[in-house]
Amino acid sequence: MRAILHVCTTCRGIAADPLAPRPGAQLHAALAAGTVPEGVELRPVECLSACSQGCSVALSAPGKWSYVYGRLGPQDAPDILAGAASYAAAEDGLVPWRDRPAIFRKQSLARIPPTVSDESE
Amino acid sequence: MRAILHVCTTCRGIAADPLAPRPGAQLHAALAAGTVPEGVELRPVECLSACSQGCSVALSAPGKWSYVYGRLGPQDAPDILAGAASYAAAEDGLVPWRDRPAIFRKQSLARIPPTVSDESE
Repeated sequence: MRAILHVCTTCRGIAADPLAPRPGAQLHAALAAGTVPEGVELRPVECLSACSQGCSVALSAPGKWSYVYGRLGPQDAPDILAGAASYAAAEDGLVPWRDRPAIFRKQSLARIPPTVSDESE
Repeated sequence: MRAILHVCTTCRGIAADPLAPRPGAQLHAALAAGTVPEGVELRPVECLSACSQGCSVALSAPGKWSYVYGRLGPQDAPDILAGAASYAAAEDGLVPWRDRPAIFRKQSLARIPPTVSDESE
């Protein structure tokens, strides 16, 4: 199954104009306008509950660690897509530190282990 | 499959004494000493990458939204276990707002949608 790149489209970013188009939607548009890597599915979502750290995206796939990143903008789209490609290629989702884009090294908000349990193995 | 309550055991909390026992390990011990609800598995993890917002826990299960909570301590163990029980009972992991413990309403760091894709449905 493909890795999912979830993009919050309702994020206002930090101190954004409340009447302007949502920065989250602009980030999603920038990602959709780029080349989404093989093995990655771009998926919009309304709210990743990281509102104070927006714009935010998350990467997840069954059996892999999940990650949430924040303080992003449309200018980060190429790096986000490159990081998503590395994530999709990593069996457990754990990409070597040096191979992660700087925004993924510095702007991780949280990560969650895979939900595989002893029961289902 | 059961819901997993992941507890970061390496969390130092906010401004904790670096030489004292890790607050994350203390939180894990407080949770393990409580009554872990049916349908919930308590699982320690080294680092949820929410270090500046520790102590932190995460809830996840296949097919459900995942959540990460922060700024927690051993005194929150009963509320965390109650919130985990509600999460385990919610088919999609989305617990009605009024039924969430205050710490889950106010200290959510992020949430991630289920990774079910069109391919696997």
